[in-house]
Parts: sequence; structure tokens; C-alpha cells
Amino acid sequence: MLTLNDKNLVHNFNSGPSVLPKEVFEQASQAILDFNNTGLSILEIGHRTALFQEVMDEAVLLMKELMKLDDEHEVLFLHGGATTQFFQVPMNLLNENETAAYLDCGTWGTKAIKEAKIFGNVDMVASSKDKNYTYIPKGYSIPSTSKYFHYTTNNTIEGTQMHAIPETKVPLVADMSSDILSTSMDFNRFSLIYAGAQKNIGAAGVNVVVIKKDILGKVNRKLPSMMDYQNHIENGSMLNTPPVFAVYVCMLTLRWLKQHGGISEIEKLNDAKAKLLYDTLDSLPIFRPTVAKEDRSKMNVVFVMDNPELEKEFLAECKANGMVGIKGHRSVGGFRASLYNALPFESVKALTDLMRDFATKNG
Amino acid sequence: MLTLNDKNLVHNFNSGPSVLPKEVFEQASQAILDFNNTGLSILEIGHRTALFQEVMDEAVLLMKELMKLDDEHEVLFLHGGATTQFFQVPMNLLNENETAAYLDCGTWGTKAIKEAKIFGNVDMVASSKDKNYTYIPKGYSIPSTSKYFHYTTNNTIEGTQMHAIPETKVPLVADMSSDILSTSMDFNRFSLIYAGAQKNIGAAGVNVVVIKKDILGKVNRKLPSMMDYQNHIENGSMLNTPPVFAVYVCMLTLRWLKQHGGISEIEKLNDAKAKLLYDTLDSLPIFRPTVAKEDRSKMNVVFVMDNPELEKEFLAECKANGMVGIKGHRSVGGFRASLYNALPFESVKALTDLMRDFATKNG
Repeated sequence: MLTLNDKNLVHNFNSGPSVLPKEVFEQASQAILDFNNTGLSILEIGHRTALFQEVMDEAVLLMKELMKLDDEHEVLFLHGGATTQFFQVPMNLLNENETAAYLDCGTWGTKAIKEAKIFGNVDMVASSKDKNYTYIPKGYSIPSTSKYFHYTTNNTIEGTQMHAIPETKVPLVADMSSDILSTSMDFNRFSLIYAGAQKNIGAAGVNVVVIKKDILGKVNRKLPSMMDYQNHIENGSMLNTPPVFAVYVCMLTLRWLKQHGGISEIEKLNDAKAKLLYDTLDSLPIFRPTVAKEDRSKMNVVFVMDNPELEKEFLAECKANGMVGIKGHRSVGGFRASLYNALPFESVKALTDLMRDFATKNG
Repeated sequence: MLTLNDKNLVHNFNSGPSVLPKEVFEQASQAILDFNNTGLSILEIGHRTALFQEVMDEAVLLMKELMKLDDEHEVLFLHGGATTQFFQVPMNLLNENETAAYLDCGTWGTKAIKEAKIFGNVDMVASSKDKNYTYIPKGYSIPSTSKYFHYTTNNTIEGTQMHAIPETKVPLVADMSSDILSTSMDFNRFSLIYAGAQKNIGAAGVNVVVIKKDILGKVNRKLPSMMDYQNHIENGSMLNTPPVFAVYVCMLTLRWLKQHGGISEIEKLNDAKAKLLYDTLDSLPIFRPTVAKEDRSKMNVVFVMDNPELEKEFLAECKANGMVGIKGHRSVGGFRASLYNALPFESVKALTDLMRDFATKNG
């Protein structure tokens, strides 16, 4: 299991940008002073050099390896964040007169739907808006005529997660920004996956897009060069100057994940962290998890207290104990502890110990 | 004047990503280990924290200060590189039935024209393609009905630069990627300026866009959220997770520029560097500058030799003397020395000394 950084000072529960492995910080810091003994900073090397090509190649290869992707899938590192993908996906996949099926299970899904409507028709197959997105809709059906089915695998803000891949013959498109690489799954079942890097892949400023090639080339609109996935595939994610340093940090983080056993090993750690925190929540009536039990996210654990004064006190206790990023999103309130891959088990232990103490004192 | 880094090992003539000040590397490296004594890395802090808001605010303020922008102009830090601006500009400013005037004076201008044609009509007012873009067209006229006039202030690849702002009443839009902040000019005359950061502003992975607000809100197409400048203005460049570290490096670089006297002071250094290199080229017949004298770029100095064998030899000499990034772009051949703001005078001195030695030996 991974251990907390030596300083043992800060427990970082940020929802993203978020904690990365200590080794990654050390290597990235060093590369800014002298990259691979070149006498140059990683910030001043040309992206068309062999030096950077090796970084990009390794990052792509590691993504393919960790996700066990087949040869039909390409990996791209792109600019713009997942919010750019909200419109780039329909721009590339959906003609004006066609319909794509979307699941509305949280803030990000809602935003994705809004952008898709600019390019074609959206069939919202189900929504959990009726209960503030505190559960994942079930029992809906996806029309077989849908151009694709889009969903968010993990809802960072609301704290829900889809624990199985939906059964459908329609091409699957998923926003995996906040849980990619955290759990084993058959990634080859997806036609398109996208994820902002700033949670489980690396630092903010780059996007990973995984594309099954057969889904491309089927729209008739004229695409701007930078929006055309096919163009990025042909140019190996270097159509223009890539976010060099952000890609480098991804490469380092992916290398760390591989060295620690890949997704199947990190999944065990993630399961242990989530179990400890949810078990603690369930055992202490002073805290109340907000989402349906079967849809609980292993990445973002959302909970509240019924007494606002106590919430303030607990937040202050967290701060005093070196815990940051624990305050809930403004739209939900309460607390949110994000337990991404690089968060050490010890940080969850520290939090749950504090919760138990606090419950005893205030119970 | 600025001096070369202590190690005195590498002279970095890269065309971008390119040399940045030594202090910036040191500060950025430190912030990756511990940002502002928070115990957190700059890579793991939330972008919605006061910590990062201060960084963004300072970066925006420094741009405004250095460029002496009036209150009508907004500064944005956006994803996507200048290549995204090639289409984002016409998407925001040009209706389908309207015409924008474009100057075709190099590789980047040509690409900008291609993207603009997706959104409206392009009136190419002049081109220097007839002579491989080795000069800046003059004497053309810009129709007063043009929605805007777009040009590239400095041609990174071909080594030409526009030394005056064109006289026109049409709103000016400029790609200043490779010479922004290098020369004093009245930036308030522009309605829109964009620049990839990786030359004079900071590190790759972020774009600066300066917008005069009155130019917005005049197109009738539906814009994706991430493509709408107005949306980014309202959200203070934080519509989604910004490229946190890239913005931080910009802030550090802009701070350095201000500490060294701002644009007017760096311009003196840039003038001195360019004069030394061009004077040397003009005095040594073995080297041949490729562009029209009056259009020479102070940022990217392009030259060739007539003997390909000697070119190889000189390149090897440069390498042996710690000079990197001196090889010309594949489309032009020969050599290109990029003399961006952070390149010390000593690097140009070292290069010209080597050129003189080489000419003596081979002349």
C-alpha cells in the first residue's frame, strides 16, 4: 500500500486539481531545473524534439497498457479540459438531424447535454434531477437508433458512481474525468472515453481522449482543425504545441501507477479507502451520507451533518488537523472527501479517526 | 542587461517552447514541492481556492499593466493554443454571410485563413506566398466593410515581422504568438489579440487573449460554452479547470518582465540582440539571411548557407558549443535563431563569435 508523504503534514482531499504521488512532485520539480540531464528545463524544450516525443510516446503507451486497450482504440492528449469534450464529442459524432441518447445523472451530464443540443438532437433517456442527483437512474432503455449513448461514470459534485457498464448495442461514450484508472473495467467496450487529467491521470491543463477509430468520419459538417479527432490521431496529439509539462506530469503519474501494480492494485487501495470512510459514516449517526447506498462513489464521498453549527466546527477541526479540500461543493453543502488514486490510505485513516473523536465529543 | 544562467552551459535558441528566465524555473520548481508554504504542490491545489485566484488575478493584472491596456480591454487565459484561436476568432466575430479581411504573410496566417473560411467569407487582401513569405506585403487596401482585419505580427517560421500597426478603421485582430511583449506598441488599437504563451509569456499549455469588449455579441450562431469569449470574461478565465501550472508560470514570467523594466526595457535588449546577429550576418558572406531587410524579425532570425555541407558542419559546431534549437524549420531549411525576451545577450554573443570563427576557417 502507498504511504503518506514524509512531511506527513497535509491530507489533501481536493476534488481536482488534487493530490498526486510524492515521487511525481519530486521528479517534476527536478525536470523544471534540468530535464533528463540536458541542462534544459522541461519548460524550454521544443515539442518536436526526440526528447519530448519520447515523453508523449510513453504517456500514450502507458494509457494503452493500463487500460488494456486493443488496437482499434487510439489515445490522445488534448487541450481544453472535459468541458471542451462536451461539445467536441457531438461536433465529431452527431449530424444535425441525428439523435444521441444522454443520461442526466449530475452537473457534468447536464452540461454535456446542453452542448450536444447545439449540434443535433438529444434524447435524455433518464434523469435523477428529481432527487438532486443523489442516485443513478436505473431501468431506462436506450433506443437502438441512437447515434451513441453518453454518460458520466462518476459524479464528482454529487458523489454518485455508476458501478457497471450499461448494456446496449449503441456506441458508448463516457466522461470518466473523476474515476478513470481507479477501477478495472473493459475499456474496449467504449467507443469514446474522455477525462480531464487533473484527478487520476496527472495535472490540470490536459485531457485524455480514447477513441475507437470506427466511430469517426461519419458527420458531414466541416470541422475546425483543432476539433477534428481524426486530425489529432494523424498528428499524434501534436497538431499544435501540446501542453508539454502537463503531458509530462501525466507520464510520470502513469509510470507510478504501473510501478504500483496498475489499475487492479490501485483498485484494492481505493476499495479499502472507500470502505473505511463509508463504514465510519454509517456507524456515526452525527454524519449523514447524502446518496443512495448502491450508487455511492468510491472517489468522492459526500456527507452532511444536520446541525450547521457542528458542520462549521468539524470543518475547523479538519483544518486544524491538516486536512484540506474537505468542504462540500457549494451546490450540495456539507463535506466532500475525494479519495483519488494518489490519496494515501493514511489520509482516510486520519479523517475517520477525527470523525470518531468528533462524534464522541458531540454525540 | 540580463545575464546567462550560472551553469553557462546551454544557449537555447528554440522557437517555442523556448527559454524562460532562470528565476522562473527556480520558483516554478520550488512551487511544485511546496507552493507558498502551504505544504501543498501547485499541482494539487484547487483552482477555486483563494490561493489560485491570487495567481490568476496577478497574471491578468500584469498583462494589463505591461501592455498598458485601457478598461475596454479584457485579458483571458484560455486553453487550446493559438491554433484554437484560428477558429475561435471567426466563430465569435464573423457571421456566415459576412467578410473578414486577412493578410497572408506566413504559415500561421495561411492556417488562420483556412479556419475562418469555415465560418464566413475571407477576403485575402494580400499575400507574400509568391516569394515563400520572405517579405511582408505592402500597399494593399482593407475594404471598410470588412468585419475585421486579421494578421500575424511575427512569422516564427519564415522570420519576418510587421514593424508598424496597419492603418485602418476596421477592427484589428492579431496573432502575436511569437512577438507579444517584446516591443512597445499601442495595444489598445487592437480589438482582439491572441498569443500562445510558450514564447514570451510563459510555458506551453495556455493562451492569452486580449479582447475589446465592444466587438463581442454580434454573431447569431450558437456558441459552445467553451468557445464563447463572453462566457470566459464572465467567469474570469475559470469557466472550467484552467491550466493551473501554466498560468502560474505566466504569472512568474510576467513578474520577471515587470521587475526588469517592462516592455520598453526588454525592447532595448531585444534590439541589441537582433542588431548584433543581423550585423554579423551582413558582414559574413558565408551566411545569407533569407528575408527582406526591412521586414526582418527581431524574434526569429532565419539564415542559410549556400553550401549544404558547410551547413551541416556549422550545425555540429553549434551543438558542440552548447547551442540548441538553431536548426531552421523543415519548410525553410538552414538556421533559425529565436531571440525571445528571456534569451540573454550573452547567448547571441556566443553565437556570433562562433559564426565569425567559422567564417574565418571556411571563408
